[in-house]
Amino acid sequence: MQIPSIPSIGDAALAARLDHLIDDKTKPRGSLGVLERLARQIGLIQRSERPAVRQPAIVVCAGDHGVTAEGISAYPQSVTWQMVENFLAGGAAINVFARQHDCALHIVDAGVNHQFGPRAGLTDRKVAPGTANFCVQPAMSRAQCEQAMQHGMDLVASLQGNVLGFGEMGIGNTTAAAALMAAFTGIAVRDCVGAGTGLDAQGIEHKRVVIERALQLHRDATDPLARLAALGGFEIAFIAGAMLGAAAQRRVLVIDGFIVTSAVLVASALQPALLDYCVFSHCSDEAGHRRMLDHLGARALMQLELRLGEGTGSALALPLLRSATAFLAEMATFSSASVSQRHD
Amino acid sequence: MQIPSIPSIGDAALAARLDHLIDDKTKPRGSLGVLERLARQIGLIQRSERPAVRQPAIVVCAGDHGVTAEGISAYPQSVTWQMVENFLAGGAAINVFARQHDCALHIVDAGVNHQFGPRAGLTDRKVAPGTANFCVQPAMSRAQCEQAMQHGMDLVASLQGNVLGFGEMGIGNTTAAAALMAAFTGIAVRDCVGAGTGLDAQGIEHKRVVIERALQLHRDATDPLARLAALGGFEIAFIAGAMLGAAAQRRVLVIDGFIVTSAVLVASALQPALLDYCVFSHCSDEAGHRRMLDHLGARALMQLELRLGEGTGSALALPLLRSATAFLAEMATFSSASVSQRHD
Repeated sequence: MQIPSIPSIGDAALAARLDHLIDDKTKPRGSLGVLERLARQIGLIQRSERPAVRQPAIVVCAGDHGVTAEGISAYPQSVTWQMVENFLAGGAAINVFARQHDCALHIVDAGVNHQFGPRAGLTDRKVAPGTANFCVQPAMSRAQCEQAMQHGMDLVASLQGNVLGFGEMGIGNTTAAAALMAAFTGIAVRDCVGAGTGLDAQGIEHKRVVIERALQLHRDATDPLARLAALGGFEIAFIAGAMLGAAAQRRVLVIDGFIVTSAVLVASALQPALLDYCVFSHCSDEAGHRRMLDHLGARALMQLELRLGEGTGSALALPLLRSATAFLAEMATFSSASVSQRHD
Repeated sequence: MQIPSIPSIGDAALAARLDHLIDDKTKPRGSLGVLERLARQIGLIQRSERPAVRQPAIVVCAGDHGVTAEGISAYPQSVTWQMVENFLAGGAAINVFARQHDCALHIVDAGVNHQFGPRAGLTDRKVAPGTANFCVQPAMSRAQCEQAMQHGMDLVASLQGNVLGFGEMGIGNTTAAAALMAAFTGIAVRDCVGAGTGLDAQGIEHKRVVIERALQLHRDATDPLARLAALGGFEIAFIAGAMLGAAAQRRVLVIDGFIVTSAVLVASALQPALLDYCVFSHCSDEAGHRRMLDHLGARALMQLELRLGEGTGSALALPLLRSATAFLAEMATFSSASVSQRHD
């Protein structure tokens, strides 16, 4: 596996031209707030004064987690494959929001503990039927981890479109993401764990203890790939690889919630400029997500108290990306509309 | 003018049915956060277990303000009519976002200091060419104020659609809105005023002094309509009337930023249940808006640092309203999708 090199989007001349275009629109300077920053970012990513959202897609990646053996989820592991079936049948929240926003949806089995057989609409990239219990051994071997990342890179290389969102499904994966968060950020585990799909206080405390044990067991895994292999999941590795591939192709990455952001921690540890390509769609209700975003210096577009995953936040943010490119393309300028400038 | 009576949307039986429908969807309970509350609210407003957003429209209402004579805006008064022309030509931010979201746009002259003549796309409800300077006399006579409100009620009665957003344009109207805020909430003027279209600290301080003078002059105006007449504007009165009419017809009201929320202060002082019908689209960057929302006990859907007005926040929030009704209508249930429930 070759980690692609990712350049910064910085381009002072283009940034100045974008700023001028944005400021000449018929509105008080800065008055479109977040949308102005978003227009500038997408313009820089696409190296264009006329950025656009074309053929957006969301890749929803599923995997199972051996750590469910420790009783860290409110739901049984079988929900992972059952929800994949729900995605394929079009009945999950991400299906609804992707349809609403004319966004392609790609469902990937990166390592679900279930034999789906050949299925229309399901991309089979199963590395293994679930990770190992990371309280006992590394979740993945290094080879498995790299394979999952390579699958992610390969998939995005086959996709059209210049905006790519990411989603996930995997019972137990807030535990994996919280473990990665603690390992990559140094933030105390108690500030990384949350309720996931709905644990009570006792369940959250148990989850904390489980993660502490895993961090102790894997304390020698200190490079990013070793940490990912020890504590991550197949879907997280797949998404990290997909992000690296997509950023190298200068696509806009639309980041979802806690688990997808944990993949950003991994990918940006490998290639820091990856962050330039990330639009953080929302800050979720999962306790550690805000701290994770703060650690990355990231500002989320929305705060909708979501804690569903699946890429739902990414889908819900698409209209804002389109608004950002639309105002830049379509609004009149002060001179073209004969609107007076401010007094000073 | 007759203020319509507005009933609460409370209906315990329907609320319980909506809660059951929402909780049976294939997602952890509560995991769609704000969208779940929104689905419940729209269901109660529409008295339906299958609420929907049909033919949404935004009414953008323009008016001029005599208080501009006090030098409280960074832009000349002529920008009001120039921006109306921009709306009619389709080049303003609200045009872009309304087009994006398939939302009808109604542009109303409620009292602009300009003769447009008969114009396609412009609804002429001019009460007068701008209000009086409220530092000298009431901004409107009681009769003018009631006429503007009646115009608002009449307009919405003629509209199709079950979701109505509001926007405004009027140089000087953050000063009127801040004055209304201080009068209706008792919050200190210094905590009501902000930069508007772009004042510096000195300009904001001057605006504060101007408002203090006006509040002193009109200290005997204590009933809601007297306060509105003394300190408001034609567009604010029009919008307050339109809100009352629309809520009485059980439409969803999508509230924009600082000025439109000041109309909510007025309308809800007259009919408190109006708040049940309000979806607060965003919390703007205008300093007083968050305090205004807090005073109303309102939670905004988005925080995008907008401070543009025109109804732009309302338009940008429409996809979230549609997402709320779409997940309720389209998502599978645990039983229909054969997804396991949680352990407990």
